[in-house]
Amino acid sequence: MINNTTKFLVVGLGLLGGSYAKALKQKEYYVSALDINPKSIEYALNNNIIDKGSTDDVSLISEADVVIIGLYPTTMVEWMREHQQYFKPGTMITDVSGVKCHIIDEIQNFLRDDVEFIAAHPMAGKEVKGVEYADGNMFLPANFIITPTEKNTEKGIEFIYDLANILRFKRITKLTPEKHDEMIAFLSQLPHVIAVCLMTCKESEHLIAYTGDSFRDLTRIAKINEDLWSELFTINKDVLLSQMDLFMDEFVAFRNKLANDDIEGMKDTFRLSTKRRKEFDK
Amino acid sequence: MINNTTKFLVVGLGLLGGSYAKALKQKEYYVSALDINPKSIEYALNNNIIDKGSTDDVSLISEADVVIIGLYPTTMVEWMREHQQYFKPGTMITDVSGVKCHIIDEIQNFLRDDVEFIAAHPMAGKEVKGVEYADGNMFLPANFIITPTEKNTEKGIEFIYDLANILRFKRITKLTPEKHDEMIAFLSQLPHVIAVCLMTCKESEHLIAYTGDSFRDLTRIAKINEDLWSELFTINKDVLLSQMDLFMDEFVAFRNKLANDDIEGMKDTFRLSTKRRKEFDK
Repeated sequence: MINNTTKFLVVGLGLLGGSYAKALKQKEYYVSALDINPKSIEYALNNNIIDKGSTDDVSLISEADVVIIGLYPTTMVEWMREHQQYFKPGTMITDVSGVKCHIIDEIQNFLRDDVEFIAAHPMAGKEVKGVEYADGNMFLPANFIITPTEKNTEKGIEFIYDLANILRFKRITKLTPEKHDEMIAFLSQLPHVIAVCLMTCKESEHLIAYTGDSFRDLTRIAKINEDLWSELFTINKDVLLSQMDLFMDEFVAFRNKLANDDIEGMKDTFRLSTKRRKEFDK
Repeated sequence: MINNTTKFLVVGLGLLGGSYAKALKQKEYYVSALDINPKSIEYALNNNIIDKGSTDDVSLISEADVVIIGLYPTTMVEWMREHQQYFKPGTMITDVSGVKCHIIDEIQNFLRDDVEFIAAHPMAGKEVKGVEYADGNMFLPANFIITPTEKNTEKGIEFIYDLANILRFKRITKLTPEKHDEMIAFLSQLPHVIAVCLMTCKESEHLIAYTGDSFRDLTRIAKINEDLWSELFTINKDVLLSQMDLFMDEFVAFRNKLANDDIEGMKDTFRLSTKRRKEFDK
């Protein structure tokens, strides 16, 4: 579906939106961008990340064949509601959001019938934000997860596979929005909660000199963008709570083994843990 | 105190004991070793890691000026009890154990008056075991923590600083056994419990394809030696339980914020976490 005349619009030129733009420009596609921050637009124009950019020119929406939304989830929903009137019929719209169910439901419910929203999650990120850190090669080692629903068409799915291939993702997989959100709650959101709580449960500054790899590894992701992550957690609240409870139950069970000198019980847990973790190194 | 005629004996030629031996031999000291496994002794002799070795020759104890005990903590206490009769008067004895209070108390209570036990924790390790992995340069990036008590002499403390410098530790610090055990419970044991519980709370094999750096970083240490760690946890039980409770209370508090849509509360936690973690990168 994507060909060399396809016009792309990136809405929200942050780290991810900027990296999409850069990767597309590397392959000589036409890319425009909208961002409320004129400095981001200026930077992207000066650095050949986009062909055209504006803070508010809706004609960029109307000329686009593909719209990539790089906004935070709730801002994206608002933006779609307010700007869908400008889409050209047939426009393909995708996103970069790390949570899916509620967002997709809401958008696909109010979206015009003559355009298509096909959601995807590029599993890539850095601990920095802004188009200045955009990287056209950022997706080479990364997973791209598409989460189509019954409202998506074959054409829409073909489009999103095309896009993922152009962006050179290492691996493209398909999940239901529900499976996606559970996976992300367990593999990403829960580790972030743990890392954060490990940093906040105790004043540890006087211990810095003693920290080895273990503590550093477990807290690396405790430097966290508070606006984005409070939003991601809230949208995925019920699923994240259930994953947190799974972890907490296991933690309490281990606590009881230790408190009761159940050495064989602890060893069993260690053996299971070692066995499972080894699978990840294969 | 250590000079070029000082004779070292390493008891327990594992990864750490072997690395002590190798580092000492690199500096041309005389090093002997005792290990119940004849293959470890044979390997160490064949690879010039020790000058002399045996599975049971107590004359090696009697000729040593310095005894380094590389055994698991409870095995070390037993070994000391059974073999202290062979020490030469004036012998300096040290260890590599990751927990201190109970071990030191017990040993210093029964130990002969004419020898000295000065405890130390080399904060270095690998996910492998055995003298085959010994590395004479292993301590270059590592912390060495000495935990003297009122029963230690100035001479003993001078000796342990000498040893740490010969082994080329990056940083040598002194802590009370109590402070050491609390530090190690928080910075090392608690992260291990967390990593293990993250692996065991849910069957995650079907998720391997989706794991990014977060989950991998948080579970790297979930491959764990069940005999050693169940022992370390048990010896340090009360301190570890209190650190686990600190973490669990914070985790539950965060759960409540999320469950109650307390977005500002979550953001406050994220800001504190980010601020604290940044200190670790300086």
